[in-house]
Amino acid sequence: MKRLPRDPGHDYTRAMAKARRELVEEASGASLEHVGQFSFDPESLPGNLEGFSGVAQVPIGFAGPLLVDGEHARGEFFVPLATTEGTLVASYNRGMRLTREAGGVRTTVIDDAMQRAPCFVFRDARAARAFGGWVDAHYDDIKAKAEETTRFGRLRDIEQYAVGKLRFLRFNYTTGDAAGQNMVTKATRHACQWIEAHKIDGLERYALAANLDTDKKHSPLNNLHTRGKRVVAELTLPAALIRSVMHTTAAALFAQRQLSNMGSLLSGSVCNGAHYANGITAMFIACGQDVANVAESSAGFSYGEILDNGDYYFSVTIPSLIVATYGGGTGLPTQRECLEALGAYGAGKVLKLAEIVAATVLCGELSLGSAIVADEWVSSHEALGRNRP
Amino acid sequence: MKRLPRDPGHDYTRAMAKARRELVEEASGASLEHVGQFSFDPESLPGNLEGFSGVAQVPIGFAGPLLVDGEHARGEFFVPLATTEGTLVASYNRGMRLTREAGGVRTTVIDDAMQRAPCFVFRDARAARAFGGWVDAHYDDIKAKAEETTRFGRLRDIEQYAVGKLRFLRFNYTTGDAAGQNMVTKATRHACQWIEAHKIDGLERYALAANLDTDKKHSPLNNLHTRGKRVVAELTLPAALIRSVMHTTAAALFAQRQLSNMGSLLSGSVCNGAHYANGITAMFIACGQDVANVAESSAGFSYGEILDNGDYYFSVTIPSLIVATYGGGTGLPTQRECLEALGAYGAGKVLKLAEIVAATVLCGELSLGSAIVADEWVSSHEALGRNRP
Amino acid sequence: MKRLPRDPGHDYTRAMAKARRELVEEASGASLEHVGQFSFDPESLPGNLEGFSGVAQVPIGFAGPLLVDGEHARGEFFVPLATTEGTLVASYNRGMRLTREAGGVRTTVIDDAMQRAPCFVFRDARAARAFGGWVDAHYDDIKAKAEETTRFGRLRDIEQYAVGKLRFLRFNYTTGDAAGQNMVTKATRHACQWIEAHKIDGLERYALAANLDTDKKHSPLNNLHTRGKRVVAELTLPAALIRSVMHTTAAALFAQRQLSNMGSLLSGSVCNGAHYANGITAMFIACGQDVANVAESSAGFSYGEILDNGDYYFSVTIPSLIVATYGGGTGLPTQRECLEALGAYGAGKVLKLAEIVAATVLCGELSLGSAIVADEWVSSHEALGRNRP
Amino acid sequence: MKRLPRDPGHDYTRAMAKARRELVEEASGASLEHVGQFSFDPESLPGNLEGFSGVAQVPIGFAGPLLVDGEHARGEFFVPLATTEGTLVASYNRGMRLTREAGGVRTTVIDDAMQRAPCFVFRDARAARAFGGWVDAHYDDIKAKAEETTRFGRLRDIEQYAVGKLRFLRFNYTTGDAAGQNMVTKATRHACQWIEAHKIDGLERYALAANLDTDKKHSPLNNLHTRGKRVVAELTLPAALIRSVMHTTAAALFAQRQLSNMGSLLSGSVCNGAHYANGITAMFIACGQDVANVAESSAGFSYGEILDNGDYYFSVTIPSLIVATYGGGTGLPTQRECLEALGAYGAGKVLKLAEIVAATVLCGELSLGSAIVADEWVSSHEALGRNRP
Repeated sequence: MKRLPRDPGHDYTRAMAKARRELVEEASGASLEHVGQFSFDPESLPGNLEGFSGVAQVPIGFAGPLLVDGEHARGEFFVPLATTEGTLVASYNRGMRLTREAGGVRTTVIDDAMQRAPCFVFRDARAARAFGGWVDAHYDDIKAKAEETTRFGRLRDIEQYAVGKLRFLRFNYTTGDAAGQNMVTKATRHACQWIEAHKIDGLERYALAANLDTDKKHSPLNNLHTRGKRVVAELTLPAALIRSVMHTTAAALFAQRQLSNMGSLLSGSVCNGAHYANGITAMFIACGQDVANVAESSAGFSYGEILDNGDYYFSVTIPSLIVATYGGGTGLPTQRECLEALGAYGAGKVLKLAEIVAATVLCGELSLGSAIVADEWVSSHEALGRNRP
Repeated sequence: MKRLPRDPGHDYTRAMAKARRELVEEASGASLEHVGQFSFDPESLPGNLEGFSGVAQVPIGFAGPLLVDGEHARGEFFVPLATTEGTLVASYNRGMRLTREAGGVRTTVIDDAMQRAPCFVFRDARAARAFGGWVDAHYDDIKAKAEETTRFGRLRDIEQYAVGKLRFLRFNYTTGDAAGQNMVTKATRHACQWIEAHKIDGLERYALAANLDTDKKHSPLNNLHTRGKRVVAELTLPAALIRSVMHTTAAALFAQRQLSNMGSLLSGSVCNGAHYANGITAMFIACGQDVANVAESSAGFSYGEILDNGDYYFSVTIPSLIVATYGGGTGLPTQRECLEALGAYGAGKVLKLAEIVAATVLCGELSLGSAIVADEWVSSHEALGRNRP
Repeated sequence: MKRLPRDPGHDYTRAMAKARRELVEEASGASLEHVGQFSFDPESLPGNLEGFSGVAQVPIGFAGPLLVDGEHARGEFFVPLATTEGTLVASYNRGMRLTREAGGVRTTVIDDAMQRAPCFVFRDARAARAFGGWVDAHYDDIKAKAEETTRFGRLRDIEQYAVGKLRFLRFNYTTGDAAGQNMVTKATRHACQWIEAHKIDGLERYALAANLDTDKKHSPLNNLHTRGKRVVAELTLPAALIRSVMHTTAAALFAQRQLSNMGSLLSGSVCNGAHYANGITAMFIACGQDVANVAESSAGFSYGEILDNGDYYFSVTIPSLIVATYGGGTGLPTQRECLEALGAYGAGKVLKLAEIVAATVLCGELSLGSAIVADEWVSSHEALGRNRP
Repeated sequence: MKRLPRDPGHDYTRAMAKARRELVEEASGASLEHVGQFSFDPESLPGNLEGFSGVAQVPIGFAGPLLVDGEHARGEFFVPLATTEGTLVASYNRGMRLTREAGGVRTTVIDDAMQRAPCFVFRDARAARAFGGWVDAHYDDIKAKAEETTRFGRLRDIEQYAVGKLRFLRFNYTTGDAAGQNMVTKATRHACQWIEAHKIDGLERYALAANLDTDKKHSPLNNLHTRGKRVVAELTLPAALIRSVMHTTAAALFAQRQLSNMGSLLSGSVCNGAHYANGITAMFIACGQDVANVAESSAGFSYGEILDNGDYYFSVTIPSLIVATYGGGTGLPTQRECLEALGAYGAGKVLKLAEIVAATVLCGELSLGSAIVADEWVSSHEALGRNRP
């Protein structure tokens, strides 16, 4: 089979994209007509993609307005959701109506950290332990070294984890408005090279990463210690509103929560929510986020209480929400437009975006949870989904 | 704030999409010019999205050719990857070169099941246990009932899980070429209503789902029992090839695997791989999959062995790969084109798609793993990523 | 240092025990006077211990009577608890009073299985998958072979788990009144040798165990699929009784349960209970169980509901309770006496013992849970524990 | 049924013990003759047990000498193992021979912390977050308050974990030579009362514990952050010795480790070792430890490497080893004698005991691992266990 054409000097052109599509068309017999329809100049793409050949056109619907009572996001927002799953937009929209009528969703960013976790291998556990002390003693130097490589990244602290003769260092950074994975990799490597140059006693070798980050996969460690932003969305729903909008009761929602908790405990799931992933993924695609971070960002914790007056307090906590309003795909044309529709593009906006995502997730949880309890789950999919009867 | 306009009878038109964009533009002050550029008729969208307003244009690059030695996918494929993360396409491409020169990736689909897991609440544990026996005794009836609602879904078996007075039934279906989540929800609800009508002794109520599926989140249960397809990709890499293409050795890759295993065990991660999520997400966006399933599909198991001759056996197992070549977003214009570029659109193709995804994941693991070991991880991102020095 | 004396032909004598104690005393300077005080003939010990040198005297208290409404255990029991932890007996005793006044604890054995899980390594995943089919096709032969080695063990089914080119078979047995770990190891080895003799295509080697049992450690797999007995204990507590005996309310206990569920989900714990391990360990030591199985047996699930009339339904589920009334340490003098005090020594008694253990655990959960809520936790330890003020 | 006799003023006497045994004998028809044989004065028991009625006599064998190259334990030790499981002592003894001939086991205590983790419930997440800052700002006061209640406990730090409107504080203490669970409960309660008195804004209530400790059950959190002592035992085994003593090879042991790692990852197990629980439990019973802590103490991480010369590096890490040489059951007659036989009774000895336990665990892992690989597992149990053919 032929190789895809590349033109190192001028690879980001409509002509080269066309040449690659033609080769794939020839090789596969498929047409790539729609893939070839895009509205921007490929010259903007270096740094986002190699071998640009066209686009996926993912349909967008807006849900909302979503009323957010955050510290960074305040007021009403139309939330762009890029998805191909029928019912999704309608369901989030319904949840947004409910929470709007209830006075809005309160959002709070609790924590903020992006990691790289190198693993140092020593002669034995004692040398590894001594290294732990050395790291603490040289923290300021290590921090200065790591930060030499970045304008925005700030080393916040280094957690240490010990197994046998291994010492994992978990470097926690704040990364401004970028998601920051590459930023912290580069900074941590720089710091590690500085460490290595000190001929640490007993150090045999190190790996810049070894699954303790834990990057692009989820873990109880991330649930405990935050990766990206840790955000809470919460509100108290008046009993009457649950009845009128959701056709169910606080007691029924709460009883369902009990079963869901048991299902999560029994299965060992990383998340006791219903479908955090749906809203997060649709926002991530629309808003130019690194969608693969759905692996981590989709986990979280739902918690509810019935109040004495019959109202229902409900919250979602997303411990590993990885978002950016700068860098990555945020500056691409449709992606930037969607961020701007939220007033969340560029510098100083990342916490606002985190809050809007969390508020959206909460609305989706209330909507799906209510649909299950009110037996409207299947009927809504029949009305709006692909496999209509 | 105004409400988004809807026209129940004619909502899927360019005019209505424009009207909604205009409202969002007015409300937010943002422009949605690029979002409004799409190449297809909105009339094709009912069932995929409500309130269609435009598209996200996600850039696509092709990696490959990927040489697959599967049972369903055989030969070379150009793999469409929709992403905004620099280096990703180049990295997978490098892994594909390596595996192509090694003779290709062997792929095997091991298992196939899509679930819905209702939870039945009883008077006490004895009534719940008796119900377990009743379900076994009436399995054929339940199966017939469930399958009344679907042309393609087939109930394969029902697993039972007991906690206190609760009985979770995990209905496992095959779902043809569809991902099948809605199909199995509908079928299971139908079966549950039939069960409920039998006035089971001690049955107080049931919930159609309660987090034991586990849908849109991951769990050890899914790792054990498959959700979607369970696929293995594997190959043996000649030592010389690892040296020439990846600038490292089998011993170094294997030593890194040991550290990664410890990092995964220590963090309790649901995955001991490096970044399964990256390739899966990029393929999912390009190919019209339900991208939120990255939550489950991105988990898995890497396993390596050094052979006596110094070659390196390596495999990835994806236990919960949720893919479709029919239904959902697969029929949308760019999405269908990408599936067709793989020869994987429509009936009878889903296992082929699963194999190509798994082979792609394996290539990405080898590429990133080698980059870490050869200290080329940061330099490659500097050459190709956004934050170039 | 000298070696411990052994007399292969007559090693289980008071004289040899003394000789060994004397050597240890000489080597360490310690006295082993009390260790040397035991009331039985060492000749009964072969099969239970090598190098017998004396005994640990672990104090026993009885809690109860415990009122059990089981299928195998019915009526009142004095439960022997061997422990050195002050407050433990008193706390379980208090829970037993509460449940006795509430009409007793209903117990139900839900499932019964003991495992050994060999791992077969193949040329590739396809050969491993084919082997899976072969095992299914030859199940009757494998079963017959496994059962050749045991009078009591019955192979119930074989679960299969696939990763890469590995195939784990999880042999599930019932083992009569024995715990059965050695029984199933022997039976499974016999079956594996029979399998190996069939020159399975692609089979490279196998290991008789590789941590999927999972033996002497806990896992979500055991939580899901039972190891030993799966037992539920449950009851409904009248509101007035909670007040009078426990000095708290159903609402307070239930609210505490909500927090405990979140603590368990957040920490990823294998158990959402408070201290199942305490009662189980104390009974295991008293009753000659394999106490190391506390690793698995101490996990479980607590579930509560507030009823409309204010009463509190509460249950504990122990998914991996490994107990025996025959074999192992059950026949030793004090151990047998304690089992006989429960009417649970010997053939046909193992489910009775399982029920009593579960009922005991439930009493301990209610007692400690109430103490936390009523702020009597510290004061009770001050009254009864070692570090009295 | 009659109630057990109690004599509040003189309950710890031979006469009262006899009276209780007689009542149980009468109620059950069982004899408690051996239970009634003990060699000490019951007056020593208050604080260890309520309702003393007799003892469990658990047979003890010594394994060793175990050669330890620790920082606190140095030299050879005969290790007391109280168990009723045939083969156990022999197997650990074999591992001790191997490691002795290899020059001994290097042990290192890495970390030391005992926890109590109260959960504070607030009006909303913002109030909970503000409380987090307040705790940091008042750390010195909180520490001083907590330490008012204890002579030996020292508050080391407070970790904070946030979910919704909940704030868990994980108080980490060092506790001298005691295990310290009661000590830290009392200290933490005292600190919490002080906190509560400050009328923290938005604080609704708190619970002194809610499963984030995680006490008497295991969790990834404990694996990460230590509960009790975090201890490593490690050594390098010469290839020839593996052959001569264990009848296998480093390569075979290492290959088995690979399978065991996969079994642990697949099952989600909290431990990738074989049977840490066996040695730990037997030492805990003999040495007066709180045996219920086997739930936490039995988890851990095994890690191996084949060196270039064919030798085998192997280590075990026990992250939650809860041990004491003071308080609890350590002062009881046989228990104290066993600790003294290790030179590990009383003040200043707890790290020594931790090292000996870890070294013992390592020997057991090597012995069982080798037996599986050399196919001597079943045959050794047939020679030494109860179900001899």
